[in-house]
Amino acid sequence: MSRLVYNFAAKQSDGDAEMREVLGGKGANLAEMCRIGLPVPPGFTISTSACEQYHQEGGKLWVALKDEVLTSLKCVEGYFGSVFGGEDAPLLVSVRSGARVSMPGMMDTVLNLGLNEVTVEALARNSGDPRFAYDSYRRFIQMYGNVVLGVEHHLFEDALEDLKHHCKVDEDHQIPVAELRNLIKTYLQLVKEETEQPFPSDVYEQLWAAIGAVFKSWYSERARVYRKIHDIPESWGTAVNVQVMVYGNMGNDCATGVAFTRNPSSGENQLYGEYLINAQGEDVVAGIRTPCPIVDQSESDTPTLEQHMPEVFQQFVDTCRVLESHYHDMQDIEFTVERNRLFILQTRNAKRTSQAAVRIAVEMCQEGLITEDQALLQVNARDLDTLLHPIIDPSAGKEVLGSGLPASPGAAQGRVVFDADTAEHWAQTGEKVILLRIETSPEDIHGMHAAEGIITARGGMTSHAAVVARGMGTPCVSGVGALNIDRDGTQATLGGTVLNQGDWLTLDGGRGEILQGQVRMMEPQLGDHFGILMQWASARCRLKVRANAETEQDIRVALNFGAEGIGLCRTEHMFFEGERILAMREMIISDNPDDRRRALSRIQPMQREDFLKIFTHMQGLPVTIRLLDPPLHEFLPYGEEEQQLLADSLGTSLALVQQRISALSEANPMLGHRGCRLLLSYPEIVEMQSRAIFEAAAEVKKSTGNAVLCEVMVPLVGLVEELRQVKQIIDEIATLVQQETGEVIAYEVGTMIELPRAALTAAQIAREASFFSFGTNDLTQTTFGLSRDDSSQFLDAYLQRGILKCDPFVVLDIEGVGALIRLAVEGGRATRPEIKLGICGEHGGDPASIHFCEQQKLSYVSCSAFRVPVARLAAAQAALLC
Amino acid sequence: MSRLVYNFAAKQSDGDAEMREVLGGKGANLAEMCRIGLPVPPGFTISTSACEQYHQEGGKLWVALKDEVLTSLKCVEGYFGSVFGGEDAPLLVSVRSGARVSMPGMMDTVLNLGLNEVTVEALARNSGDPRFAYDSYRRFIQMYGNVVLGVEHHLFEDALEDLKHHCKVDEDHQIPVAELRNLIKTYLQLVKEETEQPFPSDVYEQLWAAIGAVFKSWYSERARVYRKIHDIPESWGTAVNVQVMVYGNMGNDCATGVAFTRNPSSGENQLYGEYLINAQGEDVVAGIRTPCPIVDQSESDTPTLEQHMPEVFQQFVDTCRVLESHYHDMQDIEFTVERNRLFILQTRNAKRTSQAAVRIAVEMCQEGLITEDQALLQVNARDLDTLLHPIIDPSAGKEVLGSGLPASPGAAQGRVVFDADTAEHWAQTGEKVILLRIETSPEDIHGMHAAEGIITARGGMTSHAAVVARGMGTPCVSGVGALNIDRDGTQATLGGTVLNQGDWLTLDGGRGEILQGQVRMMEPQLGDHFGILMQWASARCRLKVRANAETEQDIRVALNFGAEGIGLCRTEHMFFEGERILAMREMIISDNPDDRRRALSRIQPMQREDFLKIFTHMQGLPVTIRLLDPPLHEFLPYGEEEQQLLADSLGTSLALVQQRISALSEANPMLGHRGCRLLLSYPEIVEMQSRAIFEAAAEVKKSTGNAVLCEVMVPLVGLVEELRQVKQIIDEIATLVQQETGEVIAYEVGTMIELPRAALTAAQIAREASFFSFGTNDLTQTTFGLSRDDSSQFLDAYLQRGILKCDPFVVLDIEGVGALIRLAVEGGRATRPEIKLGICGEHGGDPASIHFCEQQKLSYVSCSAFRVPVARLAAAQAALLC
Repeated sequence: MSRLVYNFAAKQSDGDAEMREVLGGKGANLAEMCRIGLPVPPGFTISTSACEQYHQEGGKLWVALKDEVLTSLKCVEGYFGSVFGGEDAPLLVSVRSGARVSMPGMMDTVLNLGLNEVTVEALARNSGDPRFAYDSYRRFIQMYGNVVLGVEHHLFEDALEDLKHHCKVDEDHQIPVAELRNLIKTYLQLVKEETEQPFPSDVYEQLWAAIGAVFKSWYSERARVYRKIHDIPESWGTAVNVQVMVYGNMGNDCATGVAFTRNPSSGENQLYGEYLINAQGEDVVAGIRTPCPIVDQSESDTPTLEQHMPEVFQQFVDTCRVLESHYHDMQDIEFTVERNRLFILQTRNAKRTSQAAVRIAVEMCQEGLITEDQALLQVNARDLDTLLHPIIDPSAGKEVLGSGLPASPGAAQGRVVFDADTAEHWAQTGEKVILLRIETSPEDIHGMHAAEGIITARGGMTSHAAVVARGMGTPCVSGVGALNIDRDGTQATLGGTVLNQGDWLTLDGGRGEILQGQVRMMEPQLGDHFGILMQWASARCRLKVRANAETEQDIRVALNFGAEGIGLCRTEHMFFEGERILAMREMIISDNPDDRRRALSRIQPMQREDFLKIFTHMQGLPVTIRLLDPPLHEFLPYGEEEQQLLADSLGTSLALVQQRISALSEANPMLGHRGCRLLLSYPEIVEMQSRAIFEAAAEVKKSTGNAVLCEVMVPLVGLVEELRQVKQIIDEIATLVQQETGEVIAYEVGTMIELPRAALTAAQIAREASFFSFGTNDLTQTTFGLSRDDSSQFLDAYLQRGILKCDPFVVLDIEGVGALIRLAVEGGRATRPEIKLGICGEHGGDPASIHFCEQQKLSYVSCSAFRVPVARLAAAQAALLC
Repeated sequence: MSRLVYNFAAKQSDGDAEMREVLGGKGANLAEMCRIGLPVPPGFTISTSACEQYHQEGGKLWVALKDEVLTSLKCVEGYFGSVFGGEDAPLLVSVRSGARVSMPGMMDTVLNLGLNEVTVEALARNSGDPRFAYDSYRRFIQMYGNVVLGVEHHLFEDALEDLKHHCKVDEDHQIPVAELRNLIKTYLQLVKEETEQPFPSDVYEQLWAAIGAVFKSWYSERARVYRKIHDIPESWGTAVNVQVMVYGNMGNDCATGVAFTRNPSSGENQLYGEYLINAQGEDVVAGIRTPCPIVDQSESDTPTLEQHMPEVFQQFVDTCRVLESHYHDMQDIEFTVERNRLFILQTRNAKRTSQAAVRIAVEMCQEGLITEDQALLQVNARDLDTLLHPIIDPSAGKEVLGSGLPASPGAAQGRVVFDADTAEHWAQTGEKVILLRIETSPEDIHGMHAAEGIITARGGMTSHAAVVARGMGTPCVSGVGALNIDRDGTQATLGGTVLNQGDWLTLDGGRGEILQGQVRMMEPQLGDHFGILMQWASARCRLKVRANAETEQDIRVALNFGAEGIGLCRTEHMFFEGERILAMREMIISDNPDDRRRALSRIQPMQREDFLKIFTHMQGLPVTIRLLDPPLHEFLPYGEEEQQLLADSLGTSLALVQQRISALSEANPMLGHRGCRLLLSYPEIVEMQSRAIFEAAAEVKKSTGNAVLCEVMVPLVGLVEELRQVKQIIDEIATLVQQETGEVIAYEVGTMIELPRAALTAAQIAREASFFSFGTNDLTQTTFGLSRDDSSQFLDAYLQRGILKCDPFVVLDIEGVGALIRLAVEGGRATRPEIKLGICGEHGGDPASIHFCEQQKLSYVSCSAFRVPVARLAAAQAALLC
């Protein structure tokens, strides 16, 4: 049996920062901080593997574990000369969770453990502060009663409120000491009534139950949801940290606070945090009292820690510097000041906005704290996406209804809802929603996830709402004091405006403003730090990054973001505009090739113009053009009225049009007459499109002297012979156009690999294909036998029940779809060692999927224009890590 | 350069029977017959590889080939002392095609080549029979003119008819010799007018052009169609046989005929064939004159060959015995008698009906000609299917409209059509059709393929219609003399009955009868030979053969045919009967588990009864039961009237029913909410079905003492976790039922492998699955990304254009789908070496696919009840060959 409990104390820890898997993040960092001599209250960590065993044992602590805990507890008693449960110098502890990665607020904590009728008196004696002792006991009963014994939180709060009312005081600390004693009796009675058991006075019973409760909280509903959203395995489990209590609530020379070594919103290199005088840590995080800033910030005029406790402040600033240098990353620190003595209770790499992440990485590198490679790896590529979120158009007229803290940047707009369930339901129907709450709690996670933006009436920058929203990249304004939300949650008022469910609101998370209605938004301005990081990324990318684009707008954005080509130019979009759709429909209704050619000949010059523009913009960068892919029925009108119009304009009968529409309808269009199947049935489409492509290429070459590299892509190939026969037509047209124009056109013909059969027979297909582009959307659909359109009915349930780890349409399924890609890469290279390989499905912009593409040594990834920066950073990271 | 021309002559052939690939079937057998001393006119064979080269050379004969031909021609001249094109003793030759496998009537032949104005006179002199010489010349011009020069056949026929009319004679041989000379002039003039070139008198020019024409005919449309239907590769090419002419048309001591060494229809061991006195071979095959039987047969009173030429007959009988012993198979022989001298022009393994094939194989083995293994391999497993075709119910009342030759056995019924195109079109719309033709030609192949049965007014048992119909297993009655078909092909009369297009007819191919309307048909009686062959097969099968069955009728048929279990029992069929569909619909319309359980509880006892019957019938043989697979909307009514009825019976509103139907509708149901996805959404279905299965199993065990082996199969698994979660429910119910009944139930839980992802992650899935059953229908759909329902629009074109070799829904696609199966077999065995592996798609009854299953060493194949014998024979053959 390996060791399960690890001690930490000044310069003599059993563990260190590398042991996150065993000790959890919190435990590993406590051990590490002890090692480097920082002031940390001593304690011990029960390892994460005990968590799994706890559940295997049916939710019980076993003897061997208890023995190890008792041994460690003896050590801690030794340091302090106090005794757990001792009548003279009782030792009190906190019991906290700590998983490998931070899951803020998701699991349980019990403070002040070790108090009972006897020890509380000792505490009162020893501290010389009976109020402090009884307040601690009151807090302990409340927290233990709720977390361990399951008594509802509000019952304690109600009793407290009743007492304050009775005593005619507003603040907790104004309650007379005698009444505090009564409150303790009331609490103990309340626990007895609710649990039908007396509150445990045995401190060991308290300890074992609290440890068990932390283990159990790993499987709480809110923790499960959080793990799902953040892709954290269920199997990891949580560690339990048992640590000697220090007190921020022993008087006005005490404090507790939370700080970031840099600004988590902007990334500015300035200490940033909040503290409360005479309080325990939970008071800050829970947002019950609005805390004070540690250093001067414009939005507050309350005294800073710097002003209040200058010596402690200086010690804290020094500690922050030590921690940043030691961890090479911005830290998120919890501290307590007990009678002017600083204790660090926790440090961890801080969550930050995407904007801050970029700035911090670049500046830390410039400060010499980290290398460029480390800077690149420090930024989460997926989060970069949020950098590209819209902001409020500065020139737009706007009516500010109210303001609060700029808790998570970005602008958002949607309809007001007042609870998480409604947020989720409305979002599922396609509505954009803004979630308004007094404060948020872990139970609201699903609604926060569904919302475009979040507004809370209470809580600071480190409140639950703020931390979670930043993590999600969702714009958030917190602590909007002027916001009043009705108790029944159907209406709110803000600055004299009544907000009903369904009203439109806009919020500016960067400024902390709430705006009336729908205000015009615009694309973000990317700062210098972003440009520098992207430069570093480019220097390290092996994979090229292309964009999926066909409109001029998309192409401009893509090039602006550094796209190195177009990986997917969808030509079907070009058939929908104006006259084209009519010609297209005429083509479809025709029952012979000649009529079809006639109709197509009207589209051809327009399509040629499209390609001309694309080639001109791309200035010699490669452009992969996919020939017509969707089934023809997608182009036909559904309503009878429109069908009649079509019949009229074609000079035919409604009956004929409907007959043709009915003949083209399919049971499973995704598996139907589309892609190359269509191109083989209607070769005149291939002729027209090839001619448009090659004529445009010839003209651009003639007029600019720049060769255009056209990669003509044949979709939905499953059989090499399909590709060969379509390619033959393309080659014929290329020859003709070259003869007609006298220009040599640089072109290649390749195929999408989007069917399992194509992947499985890639060695054959490569005989005809100069390149493969993995169409992972369709490949995922066919590999899973799962229609993207129809899967929403059960995909959520699959994620919730752990049947799937991620949505396979977002993150490439490496085991299944990835296996086919590997086979195709091998097969393609076996036949044609220099074959060009790329990916153009949605996954082309997903960092995990890009990592896989790098492992397969593909040539490029292609994604939507706005994902290009994400892909570039992810490609650089993949190159560094592979 | 390897050799291209191979000589054959008495006992000194360059080739032999093993060289089919090089010499084609005909050439190889001519060489072999020469080797074993049979009377074969000498000649030489140009190899099949010359055919490919001919097309590569752009349709020209190259010098080296011509040189080889000339050398061989010299040899042949040497044997006979005659000279090709010689003025004194001219050598005439036939030029015939000959592919590796017989393609009757598909390619071209030129007889009497070497005749011109000069040589014809020599032939007249030397034979002492000017009529014969001019008749031969006339035939040559006609055949060469048509085949090589492309002059339409009917132009020659019209000129001949005009002449007969002018001479007032009925038969060709009654034309006066002088008039024959005029006919030759007319023919030569006709060729000159049509081709704008004189008819070639240079015999070498004739030879080169004829050889080229044979090569070209490999790519004729009708040959392509034939190859597609019979799965013959385009790349094989045809050989060309150039052989000295012998004459069956030199007078009444001459004859020509075609014979089978056994009866090709019944398999009876009796020489069977037809001949014509004073004729050339083409006359018999073309069905122009109705030939006489070689030995006495009831249906004719014309003199037999036995009567007409007893000595030649005896020699022929002896030759037939030699050939059968030599080839160990029934032979199809062409022969010519020239002035009482027998020549064998061709032998090949004879086509035969399935019934005949079985009898011949069994009897040849019993005669000691072949071993049991050889007998098993001699029968084409696929054809066995036709043995199981319906026959006319003997007790049915029937009105015989007319009769003809029993050209291909089996009963068929359908609507009358008069041309191949209509037959094909009607069949495509789902109509059953009977094709009525005066005679058929290779151009009719597609219509014959589409028809249920074929009736011809002219032609014998070896006519085109008869040979092709037997090959296809299509019932056929040929030579129905009383049948008159209008020239415009819209009406026919038979025995005073008028037959219009669309009228129903039944035909009995075994008796040669044509019956009015739709006569009751019944399943065939399988004879003793079938039983013996199946016994031999069973002794050699390694693969078990199971049936896909759930009705009592199917189970009875399956067991009768020797099925060794049920490989696929589809439970959804059980939901459609009577009350069940209503309960099922109620379940679907319910929006909560309790209501659904209530509705399902009404179905459960019925489903339990179904399983009770199945288990009782199967007497301990394994039964694989697939849990509910199709999407729920398949159970809901489409019409508003029925929807209203449903709403009424459920006491709910039409609107609610329609809303639910609309909510369940899917864009791509094949890729939608079905299979285990449905079972996970509605676990109450799994509970109900498992309970029905296990209660039935327990009851059968209790009442009979026989353990039932239930294999519970979870459909559409793509993720191991899907299977694990469904299996958990099944296991829970099994435990409950075992507790309730006190019976131990033998059951296993496994899965279909019908999605690419399942195959790719089989190693994981095998952790939860005791067995895999390859659902190759769905696996083919997803691997190809091709919906079976929607593929008909282009699948035919794919086959015609050679994009696909076979319909992948009929013959397993080894390269694509097969690759996935191989991966799944490997993966499954890696995790669970003893995993049970089977196949239950349509392919489970297809011989080529079964061969693949044997190679993968699957445990069993499962197919429809009627395919069980096919599968058993194919499994035995696969075991012998693998």
